[in-house]
Amino acid sequence: MYIGVDYYPEHWSKERWELDALLMHSAGFNVVRMAEFSWVFMEPEEGKFQFDWLDEVLDLLAKHEIQAILGTPTAVMPAWMAKKYPDSLAVDKYGNRLVWGVRKNNCFSSMSYNLLSERIIKTMAEHFSKISNVIGWQIDNEFGGPICYCEICHKNFQEWLKNKYQSIENLNKSLGTHFWGHKFNYWNEIPIPDDMNTHNPGLCLDWKRFCSWMNVKFQHNQVKILRELCPKHFITHNFMGLYPDINYYDLSEDLDHVSWDNYPVWKDNPFNEKQEIFYGASLSADVMRGLKQKNFWIMEQTAGPGGWGSFGRNTLPGEIKKISYQQLAHGADGIIWFRWRTCTAGREQYWHGLLGHDGKPLRRYKEAAETSREFHMIENEIKDTAIKTQAAIIYDYDSIWATQIQPSFDGNNYVENIHRYYNALLRQGINVDIIKQDEDFSKYKIIIASSLYILKKSTADKITTYVKNGGIFLTDFRSGVKNETNICYDITLPGLLTDVLGIEIEEYSAIPLNTEYPIKNVDGNEYHAIKYMDWITVKNAEVLANYQVQYLNNFAALTKNNFGKGRAYYAGTIIKEENFYDELIENILKDSGISSVIKPPLGVEISIRQDSSKILIFLINHTINKKEVKVPSGAEILINLERIKDTIILEPFGVEVIKIKKVL
Amino acid sequence: MYIGVDYYPEHWSKERWELDALLMHSAGFNVVRMAEFSWVFMEPEEGKFQFDWLDEVLDLLAKHEIQAILGTPTAVMPAWMAKKYPDSLAVDKYGNRLVWGVRKNNCFSSMSYNLLSERIIKTMAEHFSKISNVIGWQIDNEFGGPICYCEICHKNFQEWLKNKYQSIENLNKSLGTHFWGHKFNYWNEIPIPDDMNTHNPGLCLDWKRFCSWMNVKFQHNQVKILRELCPKHFITHNFMGLYPDINYYDLSEDLDHVSWDNYPVWKDNPFNEKQEIFYGASLSADVMRGLKQKNFWIMEQTAGPGGWGSFGRNTLPGEIKKISYQQLAHGADGIIWFRWRTCTAGREQYWHGLLGHDGKPLRRYKEAAETSREFHMIENEIKDTAIKTQAAIIYDYDSIWATQIQPSFDGNNYVENIHRYYNALLRQGINVDIIKQDEDFSKYKIIIASSLYILKKSTADKITTYVKNGGIFLTDFRSGVKNETNICYDITLPGLLTDVLGIEIEEYSAIPLNTEYPIKNVDGNEYHAIKYMDWITVKNAEVLANYQVQYLNNFAALTKNNFGKGRAYYAGTIIKEENFYDELIENILKDSGISSVIKPPLGVEISIRQDSSKILIFLINHTINKKEVKVPSGAEILINLERIKDTIILEPFGVEVIKIKKVL
Amino acid sequence: MYIGVDYYPEHWSKERWELDALLMHSAGFNVVRMAEFSWVFMEPEEGKFQFDWLDEVLDLLAKHEIQAILGTPTAVMPAWMAKKYPDSLAVDKYGNRLVWGVRKNNCFSSMSYNLLSERIIKTMAEHFSKISNVIGWQIDNEFGGPICYCEICHKNFQEWLKNKYQSIENLNKSLGTHFWGHKFNYWNEIPIPDDMNTHNPGLCLDWKRFCSWMNVKFQHNQVKILRELCPKHFITHNFMGLYPDINYYDLSEDLDHVSWDNYPVWKDNPFNEKQEIFYGASLSADVMRGLKQKNFWIMEQTAGPGGWGSFGRNTLPGEIKKISYQQLAHGADGIIWFRWRTCTAGREQYWHGLLGHDGKPLRRYKEAAETSREFHMIENEIKDTAIKTQAAIIYDYDSIWATQIQPSFDGNNYVENIHRYYNALLRQGINVDIIKQDEDFSKYKIIIASSLYILKKSTADKITTYVKNGGIFLTDFRSGVKNETNICYDITLPGLLTDVLGIEIEEYSAIPLNTEYPIKNVDGNEYHAIKYMDWITVKNAEVLANYQVQYLNNFAALTKNNFGKGRAYYAGTIIKEENFYDELIENILKDSGISSVIKPPLGVEISIRQDSSKILIFLINHTINKKEVKVPSGAEILINLERIKDTIILEPFGVEVIKIKKVL
Repeated sequence: MYIGVDYYPEHWSKERWELDALLMHSAGFNVVRMAEFSWVFMEPEEGKFQFDWLDEVLDLLAKHEIQAILGTPTAVMPAWMAKKYPDSLAVDKYGNRLVWGVRKNNCFSSMSYNLLSERIIKTMAEHFSKISNVIGWQIDNEFGGPICYCEICHKNFQEWLKNKYQSIENLNKSLGTHFWGHKFNYWNEIPIPDDMNTHNPGLCLDWKRFCSWMNVKFQHNQVKILRELCPKHFITHNFMGLYPDINYYDLSEDLDHVSWDNYPVWKDNPFNEKQEIFYGASLSADVMRGLKQKNFWIMEQTAGPGGWGSFGRNTLPGEIKKISYQQLAHGADGIIWFRWRTCTAGREQYWHGLLGHDGKPLRRYKEAAETSREFHMIENEIKDTAIKTQAAIIYDYDSIWATQIQPSFDGNNYVENIHRYYNALLRQGINVDIIKQDEDFSKYKIIIASSLYILKKSTADKITTYVKNGGIFLTDFRSGVKNETNICYDITLPGLLTDVLGIEIEEYSAIPLNTEYPIKNVDGNEYHAIKYMDWITVKNAEVLANYQVQYLNNFAALTKNNFGKGRAYYAGTIIKEENFYDELIENILKDSGISSVIKPPLGVEISIRQDSSKILIFLINHTINKKEVKVPSGAEILINLERIKDTIILEPFGVEVIKIKKVL
Repeated sequence: MYIGVDYYPEHWSKERWELDALLMHSAGFNVVRMAEFSWVFMEPEEGKFQFDWLDEVLDLLAKHEIQAILGTPTAVMPAWMAKKYPDSLAVDKYGNRLVWGVRKNNCFSSMSYNLLSERIIKTMAEHFSKISNVIGWQIDNEFGGPICYCEICHKNFQEWLKNKYQSIENLNKSLGTHFWGHKFNYWNEIPIPDDMNTHNPGLCLDWKRFCSWMNVKFQHNQVKILRELCPKHFITHNFMGLYPDINYYDLSEDLDHVSWDNYPVWKDNPFNEKQEIFYGASLSADVMRGLKQKNFWIMEQTAGPGGWGSFGRNTLPGEIKKISYQQLAHGADGIIWFRWRTCTAGREQYWHGLLGHDGKPLRRYKEAAETSREFHMIENEIKDTAIKTQAAIIYDYDSIWATQIQPSFDGNNYVENIHRYYNALLRQGINVDIIKQDEDFSKYKIIIASSLYILKKSTADKITTYVKNGGIFLTDFRSGVKNETNICYDITLPGLLTDVLGIEIEEYSAIPLNTEYPIKNVDGNEYHAIKYMDWITVKNAEVLANYQVQYLNNFAALTKNNFGKGRAYYAGTIIKEENFYDELIENILKDSGISSVIKPPLGVEISIRQDSSKILIFLINHTINKKEVKVPSGAEILINLERIKDTIILEPFGVEVIKIKKVL
Repeated sequence: MYIGVDYYPEHWSKERWELDALLMHSAGFNVVRMAEFSWVFMEPEEGKFQFDWLDEVLDLLAKHEIQAILGTPTAVMPAWMAKKYPDSLAVDKYGNRLVWGVRKNNCFSSMSYNLLSERIIKTMAEHFSKISNVIGWQIDNEFGGPICYCEICHKNFQEWLKNKYQSIENLNKSLGTHFWGHKFNYWNEIPIPDDMNTHNPGLCLDWKRFCSWMNVKFQHNQVKILRELCPKHFITHNFMGLYPDINYYDLSEDLDHVSWDNYPVWKDNPFNEKQEIFYGASLSADVMRGLKQKNFWIMEQTAGPGGWGSFGRNTLPGEIKKISYQQLAHGADGIIWFRWRTCTAGREQYWHGLLGHDGKPLRRYKEAAETSREFHMIENEIKDTAIKTQAAIIYDYDSIWATQIQPSFDGNNYVENIHRYYNALLRQGINVDIIKQDEDFSKYKIIIASSLYILKKSTADKITTYVKNGGIFLTDFRSGVKNETNICYDITLPGLLTDVLGIEIEEYSAIPLNTEYPIKNVDGNEYHAIKYMDWITVKNAEVLANYQVQYLNNFAALTKNNFGKGRAYYAGTIIKEENFYDELIENILKDSGISSVIKPPLGVEISIRQDSSKILIFLINHTINKKEVKVPSGAEILINLERIKDTIILEPFGVEVIKIKKVL
């Protein structure tokens, strides 16, 4: 298993390098990532390349049995380049070139930027293909820079639209430019929709797609070079979890595996047991795993407080280990901490590493070393294990973008909507696959499609077949509203899903701010609807909960429809109370026949990796209180071997891994 | 009576048109508005006109006895025009041309835009003057676009100033450019005051006037063409109620009647009885009626939830009818719902019409049809009736703008200030005329001038005469502070109104945020002053309420002065408690001898239309609870004929119209 | 003693001037400031000068025994200049020239602006050097305008860096451009760091220094001219108290004395006894006094409510006097009210003067006249007295700017940090000197360095010597973190102060919003830490307070270290409770042997001016309640001679001055 750190030898004097390598090795680290911000050190003047310093570092690391992933350095162009080729810099929506001096400030359409990028990557690839402890590449760094509004990008966008729609008539029809008399005669009349809140929603969605595609295309060019020159090296990129502005399914396609940068929000109060903020990192991990339906790496893992101007709270004792186990549990096959030593200069002085500014191997280093030791202890068990589950949630970039463009109601938050079901599943001890619309649904017993705003006709068909064949399907408000060009279906809602859901929604309404509508479910429990409600009438479906409000009493809040061999649920509102979702998910699990190995106590997370012969259950206590977990008989304790085996007491932030052999 | 919908046939296939017309007709609709966003469909290429599609629609509508108002299409220029004549687009304050692709993005000074506008209107006018079921025109759509800062607009502003002030010396003196040494030598030195918070207040006010005038002038040019070519058609424009940035008195001058677009804010909780948000639509209606002292049309009436990105709440059952009656009650002579069918494409997908995306005639359609049926039932009674009242409130654009430029104190809100008196009058069952400074005051028994910041000398004289002759006048804080060039009078406040008010205000002060000063009135009731206070000492006036605060005990909060045959009241602060205004208005009504026919219970609105022979009392229950209203004897019930006549029980959102014959 | 007003004769007709002079004289005023916004009146056209109007005013004032300070008029360039020389106007960060028409809109690098400024000042100096009642000059007005991003400023910045760093290698090393590969090859590659939140922190700090230096240099050029042509006149500038964007130590260097503009925030509730907002004006005064370690003038003193758009509250009766005494008590040697008469035109119509818009000598005038009378009564006593104290607080512009650039934690407010200690000292009745890092420390018994983020090596050495020799030193969180190029020291915190403080801080953390951590001090009192905490372990120091929180129990919150003959305190967090600081300061005062003459009751401020023979104790009641102060025996009452001498009852907003002879 690969464990290591992000390392910036160029920040420190050569004299320090040896000590760094020694400390890494003694912590059990076997890999570093380097060079992703070092263009100017590798090409100090245009066309003059210089790799000796990096060779020297690599050589020294090799001596300490440390291997390296190299970043292609295109995330920061050198100062000389911005000066000599100003077209390399992106242009903001007011026509101003960005000021060089931060990072990710390039224009993807710039010929200069592309040519110079190509050359540095080729030169690096040729050089480092021969260095034995280089094992892989990270393309660029955290794709997702500023949007460029320059004339070339504008023209490229028009070209992209032409390729997509072929004829201007088709574009006009597809985007509905009849509205406000926005019909185009020629491609060159099409503007960049610079304000997502006012322009044609279809054009806005295409602009989001185009901007995403620019990243994918730029990465593709780099991958092509590296595949040719470094056939033995793996290629990855460091993704940013739930970052919404790039279609990560597309971006991951060319890569061997996905890596991601895990920075849980550190502005919470760690002494508050009720907080559920920790599920954020689990959902991110599962999204990352879902991109290629494959395990991933952590390329940057939080070590201490982070921030460019203000930092958040520090990791408490035990937390560094805990959040690393959480990723391991969700499918991480490599863990690299960010960063080795806190830098003393530049904008990230307060993005604290394992070592402080003083370079001493103190608490954070020691905790990472202990984590590393434990991971190596179980690495043979973990090897080739993966998460297998029968419950999936659809995560869809078109719907995310369309929701940005037209949220429908104030406070509609795509990620929060997903989280409600996701968290409830995790609280039941059930792992979740995150999938795209185009996934094969037949693998699952439960599929949840929350806020599937943009619904393809083909997906609707797949859902219908899936339920007909016995699947359990759950969807909710604002799903199936739009087609792929961001145009509303002209069918009464739930539109293409009407048959499978057995309901009809003739009208709907926002629920005003600070207002909540009581609802009651079939068991007589009271909950409260907020923000939005569909006015649901049932056709074939059964009402599971309905409104308790004047005028709205006739409408259902939650329904269930028997369809073919399966069942389709619809939730037409957001319920304030979390236990509504617990109850719903519990019922659906029962309905589907999925059961959990362990149902964890509140604040403890369970995740299971398995192979054909065993399951490994990860127990993670996210709280500062002790927690008790009953363990299935026959379980084997892997980390704290001295534990009593039937009931495990997890210390604050405590973790454990237990193994159960499969009966073959 | 004209009842109908805003119709966009160009959004739908021809095959649908017939069904649309049929459904309209069977709902009792007899008019549509069309074409205001259809420039590109009428002139698909520069100079090539094409009206056949619209002719076809008009013909079809005629067959179903539906007439049409056509919008001149200048609110959205075609894409080809923006591309070919980029000077047609407005320039923002940073010198950037706006990006085409929304609406109202033109520069009024652009020669291209003006010439092309003129041509399309002439061509339309010539063509449609001959179509028999075209009855009128709406100029453009909702004037009030972005401010243009281009060089031509800048020069036109300098020219406008030259016409106004004649000599640069006069301008310098009038605007007080001695301050900060801002004296001009030449007209071309005068900047656009691009920041209303920092530039010379007089220049800022002139810039507001100039920007308003640009709209009026642009409309005038269109009216001129239409008057000549379509002498039989009426001409109107769809105003936006309390939209503050155009002097609507000026804009209405060229028109036959005012129309307006009524979108009550739908972000409130309809189940909260205390809410008084519904008076907003009444005040707007009365402002619209006040522009020409004449009944008006609703050109766009809310049908369902609206919003470009997020929408608000849906109309509840009964509300569509209720808000239509409210407008009828305040002087609407035509009602047109926005829009016929909810469009599936473009930025207004969520501006819901009577029909949904699915095009089915469902609940909203049915409710509108029922409203239409009732309106037609009483249309003979309503015909030629108008609102007559002896109470007026002054509404003044100069004061609105001057308050924007220098609010005087934090949270000074012109409309809220007006609303306090307006609502109190409505709660007493008294209709209100909204008038301008230049109105004839002798028609009224009560005139209220709240926040009349900019007071003309001639108005001050008129007020003096009015009170001398027996009128009741009420004014308040920050009234009479400034002259017409936004310069403070150098007379101790209340300045030109000192004699008539009988008080003196040597100093004044903001009241700090979250602070309130207790006051007590002559009846011993306690209220609380917030935000601002004048330090009033009385000369001839009588103190009706004064402060109960250390240092400020000597100052009056409310005064009354007997002057000639009349009385003049002054309120030097904002009182937190609503019932302060109820009490004040009740006393003033008594003082003036005005009494209401019915004093409505809380939550019920009364408005009266009359002619020489009868009065029609509209009763509108704005709440979701039943309300009981006692009816004067001899009243005739016009809508729900089965009602018991002495006490009417209004259902939730219920309405009624009763008729009382005048004794001649 | 100089007492007077800011006067704008150019706002009023000549006929009024005589009355103005008469009223000033009868109020005891003997000085005015004039002309700082009158460029266009002195040079109405380019190169044509006209001083006759000002000569006439000066002559008239002389007749009434009033002298004058003249402002150089460069704060507002004439309209003709902006039109003819557009390069005189600054350029915003998006490349747009500012629109002329406010004030302070110039580019300091503009050749035109500099040449025309030079000429008007030379011409003025030559002319007014001969006028006998002109006594001094104010350079420009309230330096601190917009930042200019024009190409010339950009080049000047590169030049400034070149002068500072000499070689590009040295700059790269000093600023740490290795981070993100930001290494420069040539000076012209260096950008303006236009976003303080993202660019290299060292470059950002240099840009702040450069922008500050531009002001200093521009002032220097004016001073040079005036020194030569008007050798008898004093030269000052009107500073803005705690305005953070210019290094006021540098700006004061060329001047004879500092003047400042005192506008206490008038948005508070004056009836709230607990408010401590009044210490703001004291701290500002002490900062102003600290710039040159010398008494100062008030060049603009609040008369009434102020604001460009909205104004705040009015001065209550007694407050005009009270806030003037406060400044006198802290070292003011001249007091000039802003302004004489409230102007009726321009953007400052609501910056109310002693006279209102009506020009009548009412309440504010009378109160100022009474203040003037009392000041003249004691002027011989006050003459040549100064504040002497043994307690000093360091106030450091580098640290202020570095905190702006990287606050470290949310809500880190440099001025609030200083205020905590400053207020506690004032509550003990102890005067405070405000000093810079480079001050001679040996004069003091107590030195407090709060948030001394940027710590010079030389300062650290001085602190060490100071404590070794018996000084009491107190510092706190985020002190000593960075060197002068805004790079973090690579020594474990508290870095260079480790020895003297006897502690070690290996880690630190923000405290999340809305969270507080209990701490307990050695006396068992409980307090609460907020926002930020150092994880302090003691080496030689003693723990005075520590945390009461799981995981953090081992860490100290407050420590004390005996070092040499002195003591060094360290506070590693912000404590919510004010009395924590009272207790701490009380102990430190005891420790240092400093004691107060009078410890004032809550809400009463004490400040002492003295010379070799006497001390003058100023008593200021900041509240609206009566306050009792015990007076040392032998004290002489200077103002209200009828007072009983052992216990003074201060009326609401009441003041007194008492004199105690020194025993020689």
